[in-house]
Amino acid sequence: MKMLLVGASGTIGRAVQALLAPRHDIITVGRSSGDLHADFTRPESLTAMFQAAGKVDAIISVAGNMHFGPLTEMTAEQFNIGLQDKLLGQVRLVLEGQHWLNDGGSITLTSGCVAIEPIRDGANATTVNAALEGFVTAAAVELQRGQRINVVSPTLLTESAQAYGSIFPGFETVPAQRVALAYQRSVEGVQTGRVFRVNG
Amino acid sequence: MKMLLVGASGTIGRAVQALLAPRHDIITVGRSSGDLHADFTRPESLTAMFQAAGKVDAIISVAGNMHFGPLTEMTAEQFNIGLQDKLLGQVRLVLEGQHWLNDGGSITLTSGCVAIEPIRDGANATTVNAALEGFVTAAAVELQRGQRINVVSPTLLTESAQAYGSIFPGFETVPAQRVALAYQRSVEGVQTGRVFRVNG
Repeated sequence: MKMLLVGASGTIGRAVQALLAPRHDIITVGRSSGDLHADFTRPESLTAMFQAAGKVDAIISVAGNMHFGPLTEMTAEQFNIGLQDKLLGQVRLVLEGQHWLNDGGSITLTSGCVAIEPIRDGANATTVNAALEGFVTAAAVELQRGQRINVVSPTLLTESAQAYGSIFPGFETVPAQRVALAYQRSVEGVQTGRVFRVNG
Repeated sequence: MKMLLVGASGTIGRAVQALLAPRHDIITVGRSSGDLHADFTRPESLTAMFQAAGKVDAIISVAGNMHFGPLTEMTAEQFNIGLQDKLLGQVRLVLEGQHWLNDGGSITLTSGCVAIEPIRDGANATTVNAALEGFVTAAAVELQRGQRINVVSPTLLTESAQAYGSIFPGFETVPAQRVALAYQRSVEGVQTGRVFRVNG
């Protein structure tokens, strides 16, 4: 299959590429690295990416920023960062991407375990990830031509434990290699509208 | 208790007012009707509302717009309508409202059953409502001074069945009077971080 991997340079992106590259033709995408450069918060950048890539069989997104900070000091402008970036950015990838996706193709997005396990300073993250998990359930019943959509919801990565472990106290971690399997299930499997949770 | 009822002129708003007015001091708020006029998509309008109302014991929101339409034709700009209005509007009410809320006060937002029951043309609605249900679970663990937050997730109102029944095929409806009870549970009860679902 020919597929776009958006956010390929991140820890999960590299693991997905390592797992899928032996069997598939992967076009890596990043804001400043990869085969193609694109930023899904900028519509014209996304359109240019699809025009350069042409029709594909799968789109995988492992990208997106959110705001972390105490609720008591949070502003609506800060909260909107996650809505415009990780949420609307990935939704934009779907809304435009469906028209570049071959019949029977799949789209796989990324949320995160804080969707259902709130953490300190994480109101924006829980909201954005819960929104994405809702979105795929609704998008799945409307996509046409046998297209499918799922979202992978990973817990804290083992590789990120040193950097972020303090805000995930007592969370078991999973290596990115295990998380990558969920993207494979989504891309090569038959399911749609599913949240694939990868917990420790 | 002194409380703000944002969206008071709608079907649910009127039912909540009828139920709670005998025991509480309710300040009704609407975009163009009510004791105070405010539009939570405009920050300065919300600030003016709080300054006029002063400190309160409860904030209830039964307001918010979303975009409905086929996913295959939807644009990111259309999708952003629900993010900026029903989602960020209600979140803004919380972010600013927490500073106008007395110790032990409550905030009650409104989502909708499509958060977990997708309907045709409803990708934006499912996303926005799922996001709000995630938001209250995260906000509840960070609010200070004994403040609480919940969200009411009603199914189709009996009063709205004629107008909207065709997009909710086979859904049992509930009268607004029953939905109003969930707001009472949130305001007068002790729970926080809860989604109160009102189904047929």
